[in-house]
Amino acid sequence: MADVGTALAEAVGEEHVLSGDAVPEDYGRDESLGVAPARPGWVVRPADAAQVAAVLRVATAHRLPVTARGAGTGLSGAAVPRPGGLVVSFERMNRVLEIDTGGQVAVVQPGVTLAELDAATAAEGLVYPIFPGEGGASVGGTVATNAGGMHAVKEGVTRHHVLGLEAVLATGEVIRTGGRYVKTSTGYDLTQLIVGSEGTLALVTEVTLRLRPRLPHRAGVLAPFPGTESVTAAVPRLTGGGLDPLVLEYVDVIAMAAITENAGLDLGVPERVRAAAGAYLLVVLENRSAERLDEDVQTLGEELAGLGALDAYVLRGDSLGKLVTAREKAFWAARNAGANAIVDAVVPRASLARFFEAVPAIAGRHGALVGGCGHAGDGNVHLSVFQPDPEALTRVMDELLEAAADLGGTISGEHGIGREKIRHFRALENPAKVDLMRRIKRSFDPDGILNPGVLFG
Amino acid sequence: MADVGTALAEAVGEEHVLSGDAVPEDYGRDESLGVAPARPGWVVRPADAAQVAAVLRVATAHRLPVTARGAGTGLSGAAVPRPGGLVVSFERMNRVLEIDTGGQVAVVQPGVTLAELDAATAAEGLVYPIFPGEGGASVGGTVATNAGGMHAVKEGVTRHHVLGLEAVLATGEVIRTGGRYVKTSTGYDLTQLIVGSEGTLALVTEVTLRLRPRLPHRAGVLAPFPGTESVTAAVPRLTGGGLDPLVLEYVDVIAMAAITENAGLDLGVPERVRAAAGAYLLVVLENRSAERLDEDVQTLGEELAGLGALDAYVLRGDSLGKLVTAREKAFWAARNAGANAIVDAVVPRASLARFFEAVPAIAGRHGALVGGCGHAGDGNVHLSVFQPDPEALTRVMDELLEAAADLGGTISGEHGIGREKIRHFRALENPAKVDLMRRIKRSFDPDGILNPGVLFG
Repeated sequence: MADVGTALAEAVGEEHVLSGDAVPEDYGRDESLGVAPARPGWVVRPADAAQVAAVLRVATAHRLPVTARGAGTGLSGAAVPRPGGLVVSFERMNRVLEIDTGGQVAVVQPGVTLAELDAATAAEGLVYPIFPGEGGASVGGTVATNAGGMHAVKEGVTRHHVLGLEAVLATGEVIRTGGRYVKTSTGYDLTQLIVGSEGTLALVTEVTLRLRPRLPHRAGVLAPFPGTESVTAAVPRLTGGGLDPLVLEYVDVIAMAAITENAGLDLGVPERVRAAAGAYLLVVLENRSAERLDEDVQTLGEELAGLGALDAYVLRGDSLGKLVTAREKAFWAARNAGANAIVDAVVPRASLARFFEAVPAIAGRHGALVGGCGHAGDGNVHLSVFQPDPEALTRVMDELLEAAADLGGTISGEHGIGREKIRHFRALENPAKVDLMRRIKRSFDPDGILNPGVLFG
Repeated sequence: MADVGTALAEAVGEEHVLSGDAVPEDYGRDESLGVAPARPGWVVRPADAAQVAAVLRVATAHRLPVTARGAGTGLSGAAVPRPGGLVVSFERMNRVLEIDTGGQVAVVQPGVTLAELDAATAAEGLVYPIFPGEGGASVGGTVATNAGGMHAVKEGVTRHHVLGLEAVLATGEVIRTGGRYVKTSTGYDLTQLIVGSEGTLALVTEVTLRLRPRLPHRAGVLAPFPGTESVTAAVPRLTGGGLDPLVLEYVDVIAMAAITENAGLDLGVPERVRAAAGAYLLVVLENRSAERLDEDVQTLGEELAGLGALDAYVLRGDSLGKLVTAREKAFWAARNAGANAIVDAVVPRASLARFFEAVPAIAGRHGALVGGCGHAGDGNVHLSVFQPDPEALTRVMDELLEAAADLGGTISGEHGIGREKIRHFRALENPAKVDLMRRIKRSFDPDGILNPGVLFG
């Protein structure tokens, strides 16, 4: 058997194999706060599915642990390799292969970023409506983690738009799943099984995505509320009313202060209102008609007033864009402010109020500062936890995630389990389910070479 | 070990076990045209998940093949049991457990019919938007087959609305997947894996469904076109234009004659137009505002004229309802007319024209009459095939499904593989994928007791 380096060079070309000290540090980490970087032994940069297959045959032969890497913007450590293992970087597989306007479908390689895809679809009047808040994320990465983002209340999440995949199994076999259609009933949905599997089942080499018409008119309404209770009570009324908001975000006063300061943003909310506000709701509507949008903004303003909003500020164009961008960067604002952990819990929308009641009690019990924002429309709450003491931090995180689980929620909405939440996954999930998932993993990857440790520990 | 009858009686109560000649014939069949009924040895009617678990423990102990049964309205033979096997009928698990209006979620038992669910959601101003054309279908059956229907062009299919499941594994373990939320990234999506698995992985005992606001205003436009080419060319223009049609159905002249005659329906299309028409398009729009709907109908009429429609007839209320119902009953109309097989192929929307070009050539080659209608908006084509000679019928079906597969389509959009399409599934699907599915099946059901034969043969 050829040595690993020779075999990998044969697979992808010598110039696309890095090893040892030649591996830049970046390949060993993602953006998670809680997972230490690790140094891979090898990095390969394949050009196509055939090269990925050749790489996986080498990895199988040498029992080399394989970690797929897109842009490295993940928040759970799923792209952190095993020390000495193999990173398969999709940086060269970065082409938009086709925008099929008639079929309203995009076919892309996994290394394409969301920002690149957005530019390509915009040129055709279409949109891939998943905006997880990081335009630099790769499509492959968002497929691996089933990324969500702010539009989920209207558009769902990544898995609702992935129509098909090309993927390479650990054996090197290449399969195609799904296609340019929304309907299929032909056996198990391998597309959906691979979406969200965090690189543990197969390596995705091509993605077929459902696109939507890009609606030209958009406006936002920012509504300060007296407190969290009035905000959470408003949410189900707004989602059920037929206005079909594109965005329905909750931002507490701490987070609002942090993100506006971080972005140098003045929203024009008078000091008097700011002082009375306990939390904010940001609602974004879109429409293909400017007149209908104006009518809907009017209706929304009236609904918000009826639901107890202190006021309502209509944001359009640049000012809306700036606030949305600032909200998207909330993670970075929190990180810059020294947050020790980020929560990505989900609770059923109707239980948001009860979750937010539990939060201050948990924070207080362990001397932590906990604040944040979240995708209120879909129940996905992102809290920044400030508690530098590791033991106290662990207790806060345990109790927050338990609270979400107890309310019928889940411990990760869109960041994934990765390496960071394995302990919570195992503690809070039904062992029969985890065992079943392990068996599914083995049915794809009997030698356990694909991202070992991720999900299951 | 107790005998089977005693054990089953212990599991569900003696009065809910049927065996031998006491089993009514209906439990041995579904509505597929190509699968012969079979006589089960046993039928049980459990009341809850615990009883289902007890039944599966008995089945495992006795290696008894188990077939789940909802309303028996399936079209692929997936509810046809093994001779002498065990049918688990969900007829007693037929309650709507909750309509959660704040969360816009329904929680139902699998034996609830779509018509019952529609009534329950209507009372709350919500709707479960999957209408596969058979209100008597059970929710459990539609989950098993990933049912689609006419609204898929706007609303997607069953899997896009199933948020969570309670399911019993072959071992008798009860698991819960997903929940009352749209976002989750916590391991493999078992919900999506079980949806569409036709009873081969687990028995579903509770379903959590995403609901949508029920929009109060609806109108349809029926547009005759000179021929198939002009219809198929119009489809991508209509889906891409932002009107977001709820229904976009193609009906050829043969099918239109059959379904209107079957329903005793007069659509008011003048004889002159009827004579010139080669195919019809039915477009249904809905809106929360009557004024907006009227505007949209106007816009749609203009678009249709620009796309070559011979005319456009606006249908509302009763006349729309009657045509939609008649279209839903197209299968029965075809069956009454003596159709020998029904095609459920899908092709990418942009390839519909090429598929429809292929159809008459295939039909002509084998002396068959092939006509029909289809969910043009989502590329799902239902053709009725009239060819009483079994060998010629086989060739027609082979070639039609090959044509769909060659165009990047799939051999079943919404009816499933069941027992009827196993041969095509195995002939046209990548063996590496089928092998992978078999391994997944074993990871759920190592003894192979769940609907053996279905999917894989």
